[in-house]
Amino acid sequence: MKSIPEPSRKRLVTLAQLLTQQKSERITSVVIERLTGWSQSLIRRDISLLEMRCGASNGYNINELRKHICAALNIQTTADSAHSCCIVGLGRLGAALLEKSLFKNTMFRVVVGFDSSVNRTEVLHAEFPLYPTSMLESIITQEKIDYAILAVPDEQAQETAERLAACGVRGIVNYTSTILSLSQNIAIENVAPVTALTNLSTKVQIMDA
Amino acid sequence: MKSIPEPSRKRLVTLAQLLTQQKSERITSVVIERLTGWSQSLIRRDISLLEMRCGASNGYNINELRKHICAALNIQTTADSAHSCCIVGLGRLGAALLEKSLFKNTMFRVVVGFDSSVNRTEVLHAEFPLYPTSMLESIITQEKIDYAILAVPDEQAQETAERLAACGVRGIVNYTSTILSLSQNIAIENVAPVTALTNLSTKVQIMDA
Repeated sequence: MKSIPEPSRKRLVTLAQLLTQQKSERITSVVIERLTGWSQSLIRRDISLLEMRCGASNGYNINELRKHICAALNIQTTADSAHSCCIVGLGRLGAALLEKSLFKNTMFRVVVGFDSSVNRTEVLHAEFPLYPTSMLESIITQEKIDYAILAVPDEQAQETAERLAACGVRGIVNYTSTILSLSQNIAIENVAPVTALTNLSTKVQIMDA
Repeated sequence: MKSIPEPSRKRLVTLAQLLTQQKSERITSVVIERLTGWSQSLIRRDISLLEMRCGASNGYNINELRKHICAALNIQTTADSAHSCCIVGLGRLGAALLEKSLFKNTMFRVVVGFDSSVNRTEVLHAEFPLYPTSMLESIITQEKIDYAILAVPDEQAQETAERLAACGVRGIVNYTSTILSLSQNIAIENVAPVTALTNLSTKVQIMDA
């Protein structure tokens, strides 16, 4: 795969999501600028990384553009090639993510949930099975889980993440405030409210500068 | 402010958070590499952007390093200069964020919550007042809210975000899957589960490449 720098990659992921929300057939960089706030030249440069063979003078075909982004970033677009995910930690936040509609029409399928309290796994309702965390290793191997959404209490985050990494999970969406230290080759996306707010505030500083 | 590129900025935010978790007094780039998985040269380059005047041969003083990062990124560290935040949308996800402990010892203070259902604002318990969304504009102005955490249903996200931008909110942490289009000068951090998983999966692709 050609290397696309991280900021471009993130904008392209956002753009692909944005394109699914559009009702028209074509879109120009002027319209994308209005919708996203990114400059036209930045948008054109990001799109040029896709090496699409079609002029942009009368805009991009929305379907084509989306397909090229997904291909370049290797984003799966069909349900049967979906990634299997699990949710670990079913406190208030984790339990809120049990709603299947959150992942409808996406390339992700949440197939199991875990909590250290058997009480909790029995009381909560989900359209997929919930297990005690003691069964984490066996279930993750059996279900071939790709990604984990981590929502355990902060003080259990590091230990749980190590167990996830050890049984082959490829990436963790981290909703805890703990910064995880994993030696394995595993991707981490930090999205705890405080982390998101901190990233946001440094962005605002830059806009003010 | 000196311009620090976005990837470095994000790593430094993560590093500052990581440093608060350390119990020792000094830290070397070797240890940071082990904890984060970033290469030593990358870490040293990020830290060099801070223009600290202390050698790294015997490691960094953790407090000093943290202070320099916070100063360079303009991260507030004292509670009395905290940013006021609101949560908009108190469904399962929004309600899960009402726990005050999530923001303890941080530079953010959630001071109000909003939901379009008066029923919901009366039933839910929080340590700060909850209002119907019809009062959004008046309360946000009155409470001088800096940032909003958006957790409304996807189909209401755009309209609600426009109202937030119009009454002077500086940034939005977006927990909805909708990509927001705002013409105003407002920062957005997209952290919906699906967005986070998509970003994660493109990172994994790169690691595999």
